[in-house]
Amino acid sequence: MKQVVNVKRRALAANEERAEALRARFADTGTLVVNLISSPGSGKTTLLEATVRALDGELGCAVLEGDVATERDADRIRALGVPAHQILTGGACHLDARLVEGGLEAGSFPEVDILFIENVGNLICPTTYDLGEDFKVVLLSVAEGDDKPVKYPAIFARAEIAVISKTDLLPHVPFDLDAVREQIATLNPDGTILLTSSLKDQGIDAWCELLRSRLTAKRRAQG
Amino acid sequence: MKQVVNVKRRALAANEERAEALRARFADTGTLVVNLISSPGSGKTTLLEATVRALDGELGCAVLEGDVATERDADRIRALGVPAHQILTGGACHLDARLVEGGLEAGSFPEVDILFIENVGNLICPTTYDLGEDFKVVLLSVAEGDDKPVKYPAIFARAEIAVISKTDLLPHVPFDLDAVREQIATLNPDGTILLTSSLKDQGIDAWCELLRSRLTAKRRAQG
Repeated sequence: MKQVVNVKRRALAANEERAEALRARFADTGTLVVNLISSPGSGKTTLLEATVRALDGELGCAVLEGDVATERDADRIRALGVPAHQILTGGACHLDARLVEGGLEAGSFPEVDILFIENVGNLICPTTYDLGEDFKVVLLSVAEGDDKPVKYPAIFARAEIAVISKTDLLPHVPFDLDAVREQIATLNPDGTILLTSSLKDQGIDAWCELLRSRLTAKRRAQG
Repeated sequence: MKQVVNVKRRALAANEERAEALRARFADTGTLVVNLISSPGSGKTTLLEATVRALDGELGCAVLEGDVATERDADRIRALGVPAHQILTGGACHLDARLVEGGLEAGSFPEVDILFIENVGNLICPTTYDLGEDFKVVLLSVAEGDDKPVKYPAIFARAEIAVISKTDLLPHVPFDLDAVREQIATLNPDGTILLTSSLKDQGIDAWCELLRSRLTAKRRAQG
């Protein structure tokens, strides 16, 4: 067990170095990088579809898709005319900086304003792997229940933005929104909570506005 | 990376030994052991609540709950008068046989007919860890979308039973049930698919009937 912990610690340290190199690279190009993390089926890809549609013609976007299997998610993004590359982890439960480097090389994207990295569907393992992103976003669908932030505290503490997704289902599921707000506020007092329904195009404006302001702030900070 | 793979291989081999010891112990007591695996929020605990209610007075049940944090799930089961012990993994993304051994010791359950082990909410990592169970059950809520079996093929191939849960939401979500049936049938031709809505008490009879028949078959096989 101790050996496993040590190997994991070394892997994380190596990842950190590569992530910093990625971060420097994204600083050079002024690209905002967003790492999306959630359970399987919280609506990451559907949010990205709505996002690239909303930003079409205004900001250049590209997407790295992380999955254990299938090209389905990258296909969905490419169908909208947006460059996307599928990273297949072959069983691994999270993306790491090395996989992102490889994905960028294989994807050979044009220079873009925003790079979205959709992590493997998993609320635990992706949390500790820095991908050189500007910030992490955690999604929680209302169908998953209102106890998830306290049950998976690490990601809700680390993600600057929590997106409560599939809000169109609120009338049909037991979900105490106030309880969830309270849990997230406790875990991450400086975090932002957004409510979205990608299928009903609700909350997408506020999400895109946040992306715009973060991109502007990044570029301003770099002069 | 190779070192990580080797350490993981050794950990799995050590786990296999302990799992076999657990299996022998459960054979001695004639206890049916069910390992429930799904994404966070697919309804594992709610299915267990409905199950122990339905089997109350007929079969003795106990539950080991696996979570990263909080006693919430064990509390929900105990509130129904059924023995439950919460295994807190402290960040680890799956249960292993050692944790189950420890949980059984700490729980000091009476001898029961069925032991349910609710794994940590994660569709990937728990797949390869044998817990000495008779069979694995994978849950997929209809709110998670109809692409999940092909995107997370390992667990759908290994779980003898796939429970499509939260079917009461079918009118409100895009979910092609036939597509999911086909994906699961391809991954696991001998598997069984059940449809449930624990909140509406639908499909619970068929699930309990399956548990009864598996328990009877196990005891008959052991003479």
